[in-house]
Amino acid sequence: MSQIYDRVALIGLGLIASSMFWAIKRGGLAGEVTGYARSQETRDTARRIGLCDRVCDNAAQAVEGADLVVLCVPVGVMGAVAAEIAPHLKPGATVSDVGSVKRSVVEAVSPHIPEGVHFVPAHPLAGTEHSGPESGFAELFDNRWCLLVPVEGSDTRAVAKLRAFWEGLGSNVEEMEIERHDLVLAVTSHAPHLIAYTMVGVADDLRRVTDSEVIKYSAAGFRDFTRIAASDPTMWRDVFLTNREATLEILGRFTEELFALQRAIRTGDGEMLHDYFTRTRAIRRGIIEAGQDTDAPDFGRGKVKT
Amino acid sequence: MSQIYDRVALIGLGLIASSMFWAIKRGGLAGEVTGYARSQETRDTARRIGLCDRVCDNAAQAVEGADLVVLCVPVGVMGAVAAEIAPHLKPGATVSDVGSVKRSVVEAVSPHIPEGVHFVPAHPLAGTEHSGPESGFAELFDNRWCLLVPVEGSDTRAVAKLRAFWEGLGSNVEEMEIERHDLVLAVTSHAPHLIAYTMVGVADDLRRVTDSEVIKYSAAGFRDFTRIAASDPTMWRDVFLTNREATLEILGRFTEELFALQRAIRTGDGEMLHDYFTRTRAIRRGIIEAGQDTDAPDFGRGKVKT
Repeated sequence: MSQIYDRVALIGLGLIASSMFWAIKRGGLAGEVTGYARSQETRDTARRIGLCDRVCDNAAQAVEGADLVVLCVPVGVMGAVAAEIAPHLKPGATVSDVGSVKRSVVEAVSPHIPEGVHFVPAHPLAGTEHSGPESGFAELFDNRWCLLVPVEGSDTRAVAKLRAFWEGLGSNVEEMEIERHDLVLAVTSHAPHLIAYTMVGVADDLRRVTDSEVIKYSAAGFRDFTRIAASDPTMWRDVFLTNREATLEILGRFTEELFALQRAIRTGDGEMLHDYFTRTRAIRRGIIEAGQDTDAPDFGRGKVKT
Repeated sequence: MSQIYDRVALIGLGLIASSMFWAIKRGGLAGEVTGYARSQETRDTARRIGLCDRVCDNAAQAVEGADLVVLCVPVGVMGAVAAEIAPHLKPGATVSDVGSVKRSVVEAVSPHIPEGVHFVPAHPLAGTEHSGPESGFAELFDNRWCLLVPVEGSDTRAVAKLRAFWEGLGSNVEEMEIERHDLVLAVTSHAPHLIAYTMVGVADDLRRVTDSEVIKYSAAGFRDFTRIAASDPTMWRDVFLTNREATLEILGRFTEELFALQRAIRTGDGEMLHDYFTRTRAIRRGIIEAGQDTDAPDFGRGKVKT
């Protein structure tokens, strides 16, 4: 692997940024990596664990002279951060992000991007239920997808360079159109997360009735949900608020189907249930065949063998 | 570990029974293990891979002389199987099962149990999304709960012996009252499974619209759901039909909560969402502290270190 950018600035130092830093170092993808986080505590932690070559006390300092600036903050504050750094961006620099929603990020960030700076939104499909500067690890993106969502007029050379960068981080990179991104993610990630949060909330209500039995005997189904429902609250609040339409659309379809299955249970329609479950089982095989999950009991959340 | 039963008969040779067999051998818990499965193909497979010391061509043969008979068939056929084996049970033998639902199994099986035979229902909280005689492994029950659900008049010595047996298989054993079992499992397992099936079904509908993108980019949330939704269709059909009331009750609560969250998304109530997600995150910690999941990326579905 060889150096792709002279200087990379990471704004926000949580799970994704910290994993990016370790993967940049692993691949030798940048000459220097600067970092900034709003909270003093996070900056202190970063300095203590050697996260970033240089941790700056304000965002302006961090982006100064950077060839690539990556916004790794919750989707809801992308616009404010873009406004803050805009005057300090180097001409010819590329600004990117790692937000789970793209339409709203583009709307919030684009207006602040100065002439001569390239904005290339991106979204690495990788994560764990952990958050914060100490949760990152170099292998997080290995064999995972990173979607580039170029906006109108995105410079093709800037896009190509960012692609090489993400490939260097270990990802498989593809480009996707903005609306499609938000819909596909609503199905594969946003709605499932809200559903997991809901189910865990229901169990919590019941826990008060059944003491700690629900937790004690958390069988496979529920335990998996709790892992999903342990993800960063701020990040997910912003995802739902900013990908509102697609998420509500998918949740509407979900409720319809759930009612149909509930009705089958109530009326004792075993055939309908069996057919449905047979169909969903086939989808699992599709995912394994597509290489998005191995058959190993890992759930893609840990370190991936390369 | 020492021998607990002279002869154990496993009726039905899927994931649970095959794991029991390997764990019995590992612990030296029985002198001989006989097995029976309804399908010729399953019996052939069992013989080929050495599953059971003796595979019988009918259930009567398998249970003859057995001190412990374990019904490892879908909940919906427990009654029919009990009727079939009843005349061939050895006086003083214990009959148990591994069904995920208990009220309906007790109602279906109890009437067939002859005088002098002990019926002690049980439910090991362990599984994977795989099924069939080749999916078993000796470590499946290690550190997992097995709930004993004694019925009125269950012989205390028979219960104690079955407890020792399940402890020998690697489980932590507790007794639970029948109605409570069905409610707790509806929360921790049955409702989550139905929800996962539903979400995967919704994605499948959409897949036809978005080609294979939903599968290709199955991010963490959805991928975890597909694993749950790949479980055995027959087993789960029977679970929902036989634990109908508790499952529908929990799904009703779930829908209520989901609507409240959808409303918060629609109205942009970020505070409500953030509070909710913070609460569910705490539950995850409770589960890790309760030792029902480690922090390792394994989801409790694989082999557990002992």
